[in-house]
Parts: sequence; C-alpha cells; structure tokens
Amino acid sequence: MKKFDSVLIIGMGLIGSSLSRALYKNQLANCIYGLEINQNFINKCVELNLVVQVENDINKFRNQFDLIIICSPLGSYKEIFSSLNQFISKPTLVTDVGSTKLSVVKDFNEQVSNNNIQFLPSHPIAGLEKSGPEHGIENLFENRYCIITPLNKQDLFIKEIISMWQAIGMKIETMEAEHHDRIFAMISHIPQLIAYSVVATATELETKMKDEVIKYSAAGFRDFTRLAGSDPIMWRDIYAKNKDAVLEMLGRFSEDLSTFQKAIRNNDLKFLENKFSNSRKIRKIIEDSGQAGTFEPTERKKLFN
Amino acid sequence: MKKFDSVLIIGMGLIGSSLSRALYKNQLANCIYGLEINQNFINKCVELNLVVQVENDINKFRNQFDLIIICSPLGSYKEIFSSLNQFISKPTLVTDVGSTKLSVVKDFNEQVSNNNIQFLPSHPIAGLEKSGPEHGIENLFENRYCIITPLNKQDLFIKEIISMWQAIGMKIETMEAEHHDRIFAMISHIPQLIAYSVVATATELETKMKDEVIKYSAAGFRDFTRLAGSDPIMWRDIYAKNKDAVLEMLGRFSEDLSTFQKAIRNNDLKFLENKFSNSRKIRKIIEDSGQAGTFEPTERKKLFN
Repeated sequence: MKKFDSVLIIGMGLIGSSLSRALYKNQLANCIYGLEINQNFINKCVELNLVVQVENDINKFRNQFDLIIICSPLGSYKEIFSSLNQFISKPTLVTDVGSTKLSVVKDFNEQVSNNNIQFLPSHPIAGLEKSGPEHGIENLFENRYCIITPLNKQDLFIKEIISMWQAIGMKIETMEAEHHDRIFAMISHIPQLIAYSVVATATELETKMKDEVIKYSAAGFRDFTRLAGSDPIMWRDIYAKNKDAVLEMLGRFSEDLSTFQKAIRNNDLKFLENKFSNSRKIRKIIEDSGQAGTFEPTERKKLFN
Repeated sequence: MKKFDSVLIIGMGLIGSSLSRALYKNQLANCIYGLEINQNFINKCVELNLVVQVENDINKFRNQFDLIIICSPLGSYKEIFSSLNQFISKPTLVTDVGSTKLSVVKDFNEQVSNNNIQFLPSHPIAGLEKSGPEHGIENLFENRYCIITPLNKQDLFIKEIISMWQAIGMKIETMEAEHHDRIFAMISHIPQLIAYSVVATATELETKMKDEVIKYSAAGFRDFTRLAGSDPIMWRDIYAKNKDAVLEMLGRFSEDLSTFQKAIRNNDLKFLENKFSNSRKIRKIIEDSGQAGTFEPTERKKLFN
C-alpha cells in the first residue's frame, strides 16, 4: 500500500476523526488536513493533535491533496462537491462515508464536471452512538465491511481507494447504489427511526412515569436510547436522502407490528412463541458471524479482563 | 443479614442460576436446591454444581425450605402456587422474579390458602439476552433495582426478603402492582416487542436481501437482535399476562411512529431534528445515572483493559 502524501478529511466528527487516527496509525498518510465548520470540533482537533492543519474553508489551504474523504452530513454534499469542483487542480482521489448512496451519486453528477476528481462512493459500516472528534477511535473500522457503489466499475483508480479501506482493516463489498439504499433502510434507518420513536413515546408520558422509565431503563429501553444518542443532523439528513426506501420498509414493519398486536389481543400464544423463536435464530447467526458486538450489562469492566 | 439454611429456586434458567451463584457468593445460604423441568438445564445444574440437589418435582424433596424464589415463566405460576400450597408445612418466605406483577398477585390469591406461605412479589431488574443455567453470572444483580409490590405493606416478613435482595447488591423500590405493569410495558415489553417485530420484518425479505441484512447487521439491526435473542417462552407469557398495558403503550407508540413517518414523507426536517435532539438528551440522563451498560462495537476486549 502506497503512503499518501496529503489527505484531506472533510468533517472531523466521530468518523472523520477515527479515520484520521486510523490512517496515521497504519502509516498511510504523511500529512492529514481537516476541513470543519464547527468551532468546538476545530478546537478539539487542535487540542488532540488529530491533523496537521484544520480550516473552516477549503480555500484557506495552500496545497492540493492526494486523497479527500467526505465525512460530513449528507445535506452538505452538494456544497462540498461544488467547492471541490472549483478547488481541485490535479488528479485527486475522492471518497465518502455517507449512509445513503443514490443521493450522493445524484449530488455528484449535478455538481461535478472537473475531470481531476476521481470519485468512489463508499459506506464504511462502522459507528458509535457518540459524536465529536474526541470520541473517535483508531480501530473503529477493523474487521468491518465497507460497501462501495462505483460510478463506473472500470475506473482504474477504484483499486487505490479500496486499498486504503483495506489497509485500515475493512472488508470490501460492491453494490448498486439503489440496492445499498434499500438494504440499509432495513438494517439501519428503520431500527434507528423506531428507536427514536420509542424514546419519543416515553418522553411524552406524564412526568412521574417518564422519570421512572429513565430510572429503570436497564430493562430494555436503554438499548433504544443507545441508538437514539447518535448525531441528530446526520440522521435527519439520512431520512431526507433515503425517503422512498425508508417509507417502503416502514410500511412492511408496521404491517408486522400489527400482526403481533393482533396476536396479543387474541391471546394467540402459539403465534408469539413461533415468531420469537425464529428471531432468536437470526440472533444466533449474527453472533456466529462475529458481528454482534459485546454488551456488558453491569458497567463494570472485570468481565472483559 | 441472617444466613438461610435452605433455599429452593424454582426454575434454574439464567436468572435462577445467577441467583444461586449470587446467594452462595455472598454466603447467604447453606444449601440451595433447584426445581427444574427441563432435562438439559438439570444436567447443567449438576455439571456446574450450581445447587446441592435438583429435582423435577417438588414432592421429591424430603426437606422444607426457609426461602423459595420462583424464577420460572409467568405461565407456570398457577401450578407452582398450587403445589406450594400443598407442599409447605412450616412458615416459609416466598418471592419471585416475574416481569409482571398484577397477574402474579391474581394467581397467588386464586391458588394459595396456606398461611405458612409469606409471599412478597418482586421484580429484580436484571437480565441478559442469553438463557440457560450456563449463562448465569454471580454479579448480575449488583447495583440494579428490585421492585417489590407487597400484598400487604404491614407484613413483617417483607423486610427479611428485602434484606436478601439488598445483600446481593440490589436497590429496593416499592410500587403498586398495576403501576409496575404499566411502567414496564413501556420500559421493557414494548421495546422487546418492537425488536421482535423488526427482526420478523427482516426475516420476511427475499432470501438474498435477508442474508445481506444479517451480514451488515452491525449498522443498527444487531441491537434489535440482541433483545430478540431472549427466551421466547418467557416473553410469550409476559405478553399474555400484561396484555392491557402492552396494548395501551403500543397504541401510543404507533401514533408517534406515524408522526415520524409523516414528517419524512413531507420533508419536515425541522421536526425530525428536534425530536432526534430530544431523544439524545434522554440518553444523556441514562448514561449519567449509570444505567447505560457498556457496549463495545469491535468484539475486541482491549478497550476494557
């Protein structure tokens, strides 16, 4: 794997800052630069020495870059592509980490006419419910999948970007952008929306009951709040950009929830038991595939020693 | 805290076996006995030396007990209360760990006329998505809440049972049974049902898509499968026994989900952002209260050292 001389990360939040750490750790870049508009994040980047230089405007940089990685909310892509279209003056690899891909391809096609831009849409499947550069971790990407949805599968530069993802520990899979968006509506966008919705329902209970829901949250509710602790802007943009697939999957979910509701109302215990047993099998497959993560219920660390 | 001479645990699954471990560890019992009908669980109890004797019928025991703890699915309570009503011939403390309390009180009142039975309905808020005696852990109850819903708050024996829960690390809270059931419908039964429902929706996708949902589950879906990995019989019985409160809370949730759906359809980004930001505040409160648990996304243990 060749070492990049200069890398620009646009958006130094959880993912951007984790990438910076991962690229340095794996000696993949000589100099990493950051573009960030949130002043708190800028201060953190300086304080934690995450990049060699951080600016709030791309035009403040005096140099060009070998590789640019877009790690900002999907709503910012149009403007970013437009500014890259202006700024870039030598052949440059560009990729992103956005959770939807159709909208990214559309924004790119609308804004970019600069042939120096060699763009591969990417979606590294990695994250945490925290946000901000102080929460980034260098091994966030290790052993996780990165989906790519190439604009043109014949492009020769693709393999250089793939090598970068692989060098920080990721396994590459290729998909059509539309298929990606439907799959991730189900895997990610629907669970997240439902988690938000459950938390919202609890929030609207009378005060005493709400306090109790929070107090005893360890009984299940807290798992939903973990998802709901994620960055609001990032998620707002995901729903705006993947509207059709989200509404389709939400319709399917609502139908299924209604069948559970009906079974409870009708005391159909056999139906419930069968469905619950099937769900457990799915969990087993995920655990066996090494994608389950590790949950420690006691807040203590001794089980992990 | 006095040490019990003989304790009977009815149901040696995850909770029962964790209790056995916790009671021995804290030197609260000389001899712990197990009543269990699942032959695999019986074998595990013997293999792991979790109790001094395990039987599949209470009448096979030659001795009486100081304390009996019911840790079996809610659907078994009627029969258990009936057999205890016959079996018990000296004053005996009895408690349980059931996730609903109104149904437990009702079953008790219908089945028990034996004045030697001193019953305190309890609900220790502790659990894991695993089941079976081999997954029990001795510190499962430490620093967690135990809700009690006394039949008669003046009963003197209540404080002996409370002392036992406290001695294994629990914090006691008293509630009315009906209030308990509504609170836990929201905290526990609804999130669990929704998790089952999301997993069911994914299960019904065409095969290729389903395989991909499992493969990339780390993006959010896996959190739902964690809940859905729990014991199917236990959960089937919870919905049967807490039907009214569950249907009420499910109605509220469905209304809230519809408002999110509508906001996505209408591109109401401001609504989504506000709701998502509010959810994040709830998460913060839960983290600050030390009830959040610890999630490690990488399957690696090094972060916890």
